[in-house]
Amino acid sequence: MVTSLLETIGIEYPIIQAPMAGGITTPELVANVSKNGGLGMIAAGYLDPDQLKVAIQEVKKRVDKPFGVNLFVPNDFTYFSQHVENMQLMMKSIYDELQITDYKVGELPKFKDQQAIFEQHLQVILEEAIKVCSFTFGLPSEEQIKQLRQAGVYTIGTATTVREALFIQELGMDAVVMQGSEAGGHRSHFLSSFQEGNIGLMALVPQAVEEINIPIIAAGGIMNGRGVRACLQLGAQAAQMGTAFLTLKESGAQDLHKTAVLYATEDKMVFTKAFSGKWARGIKNEFTEEMNSNEAMTLPFPIQNTLTQSIRKEAAKQKKPEYMSLWSGQAPRLATNIDVTTFMDRLIRELNY
Amino acid sequence: MVTSLLETIGIEYPIIQAPMAGGITTPELVANVSKNGGLGMIAAGYLDPDQLKVAIQEVKKRVDKPFGVNLFVPNDFTYFSQHVENMQLMMKSIYDELQITDYKVGELPKFKDQQAIFEQHLQVILEEAIKVCSFTFGLPSEEQIKQLRQAGVYTIGTATTVREALFIQELGMDAVVMQGSEAGGHRSHFLSSFQEGNIGLMALVPQAVEEINIPIIAAGGIMNGRGVRACLQLGAQAAQMGTAFLTLKESGAQDLHKTAVLYATEDKMVFTKAFSGKWARGIKNEFTEEMNSNEAMTLPFPIQNTLTQSIRKEAAKQKKPEYMSLWSGQAPRLATNIDVTTFMDRLIRELNY
Repeated sequence: MVTSLLETIGIEYPIIQAPMAGGITTPELVANVSKNGGLGMIAAGYLDPDQLKVAIQEVKKRVDKPFGVNLFVPNDFTYFSQHVENMQLMMKSIYDELQITDYKVGELPKFKDQQAIFEQHLQVILEEAIKVCSFTFGLPSEEQIKQLRQAGVYTIGTATTVREALFIQELGMDAVVMQGSEAGGHRSHFLSSFQEGNIGLMALVPQAVEEINIPIIAAGGIMNGRGVRACLQLGAQAAQMGTAFLTLKESGAQDLHKTAVLYATEDKMVFTKAFSGKWARGIKNEFTEEMNSNEAMTLPFPIQNTLTQSIRKEAAKQKKPEYMSLWSGQAPRLATNIDVTTFMDRLIRELNY
Repeated sequence: MVTSLLETIGIEYPIIQAPMAGGITTPELVANVSKNGGLGMIAAGYLDPDQLKVAIQEVKKRVDKPFGVNLFVPNDFTYFSQHVENMQLMMKSIYDELQITDYKVGELPKFKDQQAIFEQHLQVILEEAIKVCSFTFGLPSEEQIKQLRQAGVYTIGTATTVREALFIQELGMDAVVMQGSEAGGHRSHFLSSFQEGNIGLMALVPQAVEEINIPIIAAGGIMNGRGVRACLQLGAQAAQMGTAFLTLKESGAQDLHKTAVLYATEDKMVFTKAFSGKWARGIKNEFTEEMNSNEAMTLPFPIQNTLTQSIRKEAAKQKKPEYMSLWSGQAPRLATNIDVTTFMDRLIRELNY
């Protein structure tokens, strides 16, 4: 018998707001989701440990209900410094167009620093007695999982294939997010390749249900009551929704990003690793088109991410969405720009609760 | 108010057996699906008009309930004969391994012949008073649709994007199959590109529901009651299932094909146009791996299909699945090898009818 995710973490509705890194998951967004009976999630991805602590405390000030934190698990990486210069040369015309002169980056991220930050993130989770902690891009060690669970943290892994889900279950985690190919933003494959782990939820969830016995959370392309109800029918216990929350009023996404999603159609999406070094889905634009033709030159995460930082920042400042990372799932036609409470009310009504 | 597909075509359950060309949809398969309250579909794709007529009459002998026929809509194509020789040179090692000496093909298919066959197929549909006719790879003309509908034929187009679905509605067709990215076999995009039209059902169906008002049939990765129920929740009126029927006893798929699907996992799939010239999903094997590295050399459909015919035939005869087209959707773990009646009984029970 699969345990009940909702009961265990103490939320009312099977609705989880996907952690979206890069300033999207404001304390207001997270708190308002939890206030309305869902599970808000802080994306710790690009936050340093102090920023994470502040974000958590800001959410706690606003709500006395469970919420979660998502951590990026660092992956080791290697690259040649010559390739950094090549990439910068390749992006030279974009630097120029945006009048970025100081594009020479200083010290690039190191794996051991990333690991140290991850350890510190885990400490913050424990110190702040966070109820739910999910992981993307990989998994914590068995030791770390044990420590979290002993402290009462509900641990969630993210999988793109049944094979990855089985691994997460084997490690002793409490639940698994099955990330369908419909999802916006970064793919979370770690054992399977990008190609292997690109499976639609309609196929992914029912196969996982037959193979694993920890609760399944479905993620990818879910925007409204129809989607949530469909996921529950497939055998998931909850739906994790990203794009649906990204465009809401409380989201910290750039206005140009919200607008781009609100006006996008399902056929204007693209997978790219040009922004960060990891595959992610967003709205096709000049940057993805130019860069995808030289995909092989992309540096690994987080190096590529560091190299494109000034471009993304300046593009947002100069209101040039053609060079911004416009992450979106495959159902942008259903995006809305209402506030969280109005959205949750409607969603819950659509669920016939 | 959207009309009821089930009522209009007169079937009991929201289950359509996907038309799968190449000998898979035997009269037994089609008839037994319809006998059990679903809609069986004959794939006319590679049949000449006489063969189609025989197939229809064979189904009629077996069942007195509605069934359908699917037609390939011919697309114009051009190519250089030099490229045919290049492709044959590229496949030389495979011809050799399979000891195919007469790989020089005679006359290659011509668009105007394909068009003539399509016209004749339409005549057979009318003569045999077929109840339901669906189309892939494109659409009949407005004139042809009008003629079919006046004769009482229920016409169904196949779309991979909302844009394509809107076009199908505009043309005056009765219903639309929304083909999700999860689907096995050939992609049915015609206005959208292969890249644009690769959308998971979880995202595709609810967006289509908001934009069109003809009945929607969901297709791709649906294997059991969970999948069918999920599709209904998304707003589809029926689910079209291919792979789920392909491995059943009555299916005419090669035994090696059935076995490959029955033992496959969701992460072993690949898109290839190396077999036919059109993008299709199947199980990764030596042929897809070798050929996908030179994808740009692929000839258009149906030329490529003609060039690989001897390979596929000999590979099946010599029991070498590594050179066969092993079409499958993304949920092969849920495939079974029972008979149609047992399968339909289980499915209907899972639907709680």
